[in-house]
Amino acid sequence: MSVQNTPLVLRADDGPVAILTLNRPAARNSLSLAMLAALQEALDGIAAEDGIRCVVIAAEGPAFSAGHDLKEITAHREDADGGRGFFEETMAACARVMQGVVGLPQPVIAAVEGIATAAGCQLAASCDLVVAAEGAKFCTPGVDIGLFCTTPGVALARAVPRKAAMEMLLLGEMVPAAEAQRMGLVNRVVPPGQALPEALALARRIAARSGVALRMGKRGFNAQAAMPLSEAYAAAGTIMVENLLAEDAAEGIGAFLGKRTPEWRHR
Amino acid sequence: MSVQNTPLVLRADDGPVAILTLNRPAARNSLSLAMLAALQEALDGIAAEDGIRCVVIAAEGPAFSAGHDLKEITAHREDADGGRGFFEETMAACARVMQGVVGLPQPVIAAVEGIATAAGCQLAASCDLVVAAEGAKFCTPGVDIGLFCTTPGVALARAVPRKAAMEMLLLGEMVPAAEAQRMGLVNRVVPPGQALPEALALARRIAARSGVALRMGKRGFNAQAAMPLSEAYAAAGTIMVENLLAEDAAEGIGAFLGKRTPEWRHR
Amino acid sequence: MSVQNTPLVLRADDGPVAILTLNRPAARNSLSLAMLAALQEALDGIAAEDGIRCVVIAAEGPAFSAGHDLKEITAHREDADGGRGFFEETMAACARVMQGVVGLPQPVIAAVEGIATAAGCQLAASCDLVVAAEGAKFCTPGVDIGLFCTTPGVALARAVPRKAAMEMLLLGEMVPAAEAQRMGLVNRVVPPGQALPEALALARRIAARSGVALRMGKRGFNAQAAMPLSEAYAAAGTIMVENLLAEDAAEGIGAFLGKRTPEWRHR
Repeated sequence: MSVQNTPLVLRADDGPVAILTLNRPAARNSLSLAMLAALQEALDGIAAEDGIRCVVIAAEGPAFSAGHDLKEITAHREDADGGRGFFEETMAACARVMQGVVGLPQPVIAAVEGIATAAGCQLAASCDLVVAAEGAKFCTPGVDIGLFCTTPGVALARAVPRKAAMEMLLLGEMVPAAEAQRMGLVNRVVPPGQALPEALALARRIAARSGVALRMGKRGFNAQAAMPLSEAYAAAGTIMVENLLAEDAAEGIGAFLGKRTPEWRHR
Repeated sequence: MSVQNTPLVLRADDGPVAILTLNRPAARNSLSLAMLAALQEALDGIAAEDGIRCVVIAAEGPAFSAGHDLKEITAHREDADGGRGFFEETMAACARVMQGVVGLPQPVIAAVEGIATAAGCQLAASCDLVVAAEGAKFCTPGVDIGLFCTTPGVALARAVPRKAAMEMLLLGEMVPAAEAQRMGLVNRVVPPGQALPEALALARRIAARSGVALRMGKRGFNAQAAMPLSEAYAAAGTIMVENLLAEDAAEGIGAFLGKRTPEWRHR
Repeated sequence: MSVQNTPLVLRADDGPVAILTLNRPAARNSLSLAMLAALQEALDGIAAEDGIRCVVIAAEGPAFSAGHDLKEITAHREDADGGRGFFEETMAACARVMQGVVGLPQPVIAAVEGIATAAGCQLAASCDLVVAAEGAKFCTPGVDIGLFCTTPGVALARAVPRKAAMEMLLLGEMVPAAEAQRMGLVNRVVPPGQALPEALALARRIAARSGVALRMGKRGFNAQAAMPLSEAYAAAGTIMVENLLAEDAAEGIGAFLGKRTPEWRHR
């Protein structure tokens, strides 16, 4: 296991699984511009690494992430433009990170303990899978501070039914893990302290599969989901043919028919 | 509390909350052309009132709404065109009302006691949130009368999963409030008689927030939800920057950091 | 009850209900190219029959369908093009069948006992309604054989929430009927052996309604669900007007108002 520490995001690799840890616990892992840049850099690195086949995003300290850094935002109100430039930069950086998670070739699993609020909730919602500990809470509380969690709503609207998203956005209430699971925001609820171990267990199982299939699959899923049905089938069918022609599919299907364990080359 | 009575839709304001009450109980609040016009007029009025920050739609009598007025529809079969002109007018008026609810700057909460069927179910489904009493029932029974609830299906398809919508539309069965909640059509189920008080309690909490944030937020949510992901983030990010620059956000974030209660100017 | 046997797909009609039975139990009803062709032929036939108003897809033997025929796929790796032509043909045929189910004028109900995996899961997910027996299991296990169930994901993404679909696709786990129901993939769970009787009971209730309304309704629902809201209302409103002008609507509404049983002419 190799570990490369950076100030704001830690990366530790467990074989083909990369674990990214938000590491600003004193600020409840709020997504300052520097934190977003560190996350972006980590994601960009992983995207280019074929040896990594699954990613876990976890957090140091009691909170997963409290969203944007309100002190930083407030400080920039003193800028000559009243903060507009900084707000634009922050929103652009945040949108890039969230779309970076969705667009990452590898599947991404959020391991949530404690609160995931505002852009922190958005980060979890942007992951392919979410494992939450029993005490975890999801919330989009912008309305409490004169805002509306409009950008978190982008991720939320794509993860949960419409009225559930509107309830979270309009009321800003804390949603416990079990309710978040009923909504479709959370895949697995585990005892306190077990979010990372469970996310890691799932990640290892995923990463034990063919990397080429996972990459084709994740990208293909997100692409087709946004298309009309006939286009979706055309796009998905093309991917399926390429997937069937890949070495790992020949190996995997051969192993299945021969009742032996496949050996992936990830090609 | 000011009250302006109209024959078919009553309006009562509770501070920043407008309560619209369907007031045709003898006809189970069916949506005649006149009822649709009255609803449209009420919505148009509210849309222009910045002092109103949340809306509740409730109903007089045991039924929320039984949908279109079948007697009125049948009477127009005697028209020279066999009713075509009247049916077109009714469908256009109905679509305008339903989109008027979705497009209203203020959030809208349905308070449902009794049945919400056909276009009545559509009206509830078109609201941002739905509070239903335990005895409330949702139904799209067009198939029982030689129809298919195609226009109610527009609202239903955007509120509940595909197969749940098809089941309601194909079978036309009454769906109890608790099941409607599991589907995602209902946000809260309360004891009989408590739909309006609970809807009102939620509306007051929502209306206690910044009106500018609520307006930006509702419009922004609906706009982005229909866009591809990257467009959605571009649109939502632009709104978020404007929201951060609004007076209420400066006040709200400042109050949060200063641990005091914010005072909204709704600007 | 007339029965026309074909080698791979059996058809039996129960009045206005056509029952298609996948009849390759020894190969767990896998969707070979010949099976897909037989299904397509059966669907094409039914599409043209106004007398059929609902369709049930069931299966012979303990499995609903295990998906594509891996032996057939493997055999074609010996083709001069390494199988590409055959894979393309299979994917095109499969996409045509799945869209044929969605696009069939009549509603389609899957009756699932045993496993529905990969393209077998896709077939169930493509149906308008799914009835599953308690022991039924749904699974997209492509990842176990070097694939990713990208084409099944097209149907899955349109039936269940995003994270539930990704969990099925990334982990390839068997999902029991009850969990599939919570996800929205299954409408009704019944005791073992009761999937076909229950599907048939639902089909008979659906088929007892006006055929013209069912045809307009299914097509209209699928069309509008893929449109922006205002287009959806325009399209749905046009259908609703035609539906109101159809003979069966006049009869149905008249019967309702006259408190008598309607007699459909299916026009």
